[in-house]
Amino acid sequence: MNAAISDVERTMQELLARYGARFPALPGALPVYEVLAYHLGWRDERMQPASGVSGKRFRPALCTAIASAVCGDAARAVGIAAAIELLHNFTLIHDDIQDRSRLRRHRPTIWALWGDAQAINAGDALFVLSQIAALEAAQALEPSRGAELVRRFNETALLIVEGQVLDLSFEQRPEVSVNEYLTMIERKTAALIAYSAWAGALVAGAPAEVAARLERFGRALGLGFQIRDDYLGVWGDPAVTGKPRGDDLRQRKKSLPIVLVLERAAASDRAWLLDLWRRRTELSAEEVAAVIELLERYAVRTALQEAVERFHGEALAELEALSLTPEGVASLQGLVAGLPVREA
Amino acid sequence: MNAAISDVERTMQELLARYGARFPALPGALPVYEVLAYHLGWRDERMQPASGVSGKRFRPALCTAIASAVCGDAARAVGIAAAIELLHNFTLIHDDIQDRSRLRRHRPTIWALWGDAQAINAGDALFVLSQIAALEAAQALEPSRGAELVRRFNETALLIVEGQVLDLSFEQRPEVSVNEYLTMIERKTAALIAYSAWAGALVAGAPAEVAARLERFGRALGLGFQIRDDYLGVWGDPAVTGKPRGDDLRQRKKSLPIVLVLERAAASDRAWLLDLWRRRTELSAEEVAAVIELLERYAVRTALQEAVERFHGEALAELEALSLTPEGVASLQGLVAGLPVREA
Repeated sequence: MNAAISDVERTMQELLARYGARFPALPGALPVYEVLAYHLGWRDERMQPASGVSGKRFRPALCTAIASAVCGDAARAVGIAAAIELLHNFTLIHDDIQDRSRLRRHRPTIWALWGDAQAINAGDALFVLSQIAALEAAQALEPSRGAELVRRFNETALLIVEGQVLDLSFEQRPEVSVNEYLTMIERKTAALIAYSAWAGALVAGAPAEVAARLERFGRALGLGFQIRDDYLGVWGDPAVTGKPRGDDLRQRKKSLPIVLVLERAAASDRAWLLDLWRRRTELSAEEVAAVIELLERYAVRTALQEAVERFHGEALAELEALSLTPEGVASLQGLVAGLPVREA
Repeated sequence: MNAAISDVERTMQELLARYGARFPALPGALPVYEVLAYHLGWRDERMQPASGVSGKRFRPALCTAIASAVCGDAARAVGIAAAIELLHNFTLIHDDIQDRSRLRRHRPTIWALWGDAQAINAGDALFVLSQIAALEAAQALEPSRGAELVRRFNETALLIVEGQVLDLSFEQRPEVSVNEYLTMIERKTAALIAYSAWAGALVAGAPAEVAARLERFGRALGLGFQIRDDYLGVWGDPAVTGKPRGDDLRQRKKSLPIVLVLERAAASDRAWLLDLWRRRTELSAEEVAAVIELLERYAVRTALQEAVERFHGEALAELEALSLTPEGVASLQGLVAGLPVREA
């Protein structure tokens, strides 16, 4: 973990500790700030301090790396990077309830341990904490730039919620087009990665056109990131992803592999798959294996890898058009290079 | 509905329309902005325009009345009053999921119509919209006052979530003391009413000590408001409240009537009630009637009325210590006067 990310971690911990100290320790009351510390990986299930963090911290790493590439000072982005990571984690808490996901990063999810109702509260609390972190980050800027930082933070949050609305709606539909799928993931995933890049540039004092290009860089990166996620949801190694094998299939998600195979498959294969997806129950291990076999038959695995490479290439092209320092470009390229082949 | 409240309503509608226009109308996707319009009373269940609003709009009415009493210009508070009402409604959407409440203001709740998962999203979207409304309200102020307005908006939101955490935790405990109950409702209800009063004073340019006194006024008012709510949860008229008779009892809530009767009752009555409250199922109509009979026997109804009157008196005492215009005091007194006897 680099120095800037350690600072992001400390900023998040300090914020939780500051507000947690104001929450009365009434007997039997859920210690909601400790629940959040568990979610973020700082505590284990028995609420004992845990070593390490939970999650990749990809968004704050991107945000601080961009600030560093723009102005040489990653520290300027630590505050907004902390806000972004808290916002992202709020969405995960609510997503896990909505998707009935019992495991995240090898550990039980909040709703699985403390029930849906308190998990909704934990997510809401983290959402507010992300807002407070963003407001504190904005205080370091000139007022109009600070106001823009926080306004777009919220517009991004709204896009994420809209993306989740679409994602859940798609589960109720027999078919989803590739364009509809891209509209959904652009909101659900790419918007926050684009914001992370844009905000890193803004706090580093980049001109508006540089920040806009880095936002496009982030959006392409984010689309590739989500498609890689969809890839891992089918072909990921459970020991690395922390989720059961073929988890997205088991849950009958309309992730890109399914969207693509429905476009490509012969009528009888389509009918078989649509019938499977109409069911109300989770798929069995045998059914999951049969779906994976179908995906291989229509070369969907390769198509996903190609899509990731394409968005990755678009992202790198945006970078090359910028006149950043050579060290800055190298650090961003390093951050990006691992994405198309990441395993978790 | 007074002129300022019509402006608050328009501000909320304009904000939803502005962001709703950016949400793609994909077939089968939940129209989440229309769902929010339904919740706020502007549309009916078939998404047709509805006349009138849903809810009392008490918080924005208080906020604008205070701005008017301080500076003579209610319009200055319209923006933050809209943000407050949106924040309040976000909490209602999530509360209804958590409490499994199927009806609010005589109409089905969002989760009852569209399911838990999308209701979580609808609440999250409204939460973001409340933040955007607060940020827009802050833009009209000098930067440091604007920053304080939004920071405290979020600190209040955090208190509300903490209050809900405590409320749900109390449901799992056999008994709750009066002090614990007050700690909970101070967060869950009084904090936002206190903020409404404080923010109305701030945007009107009141000195800090005047705003602080109006915040105390709002807190006392809010405590009385919630205790009246608890009263109506047992003794309210279903035709007026829009909820079934004895709804809080049926759901085995630890509202103030139960907290008080457990303090007062003889051992055998306590044991009977605790036994009833330990059950996992809702109470029958006969059991609800028996609990109400017990509450009457221990004069709990009178005790609640007295508590409302006491907080109401505290609130009025704070008002009298201020040198507001006579018209301003009269308008606030008018707003407050109905609270101890309100029926919904």
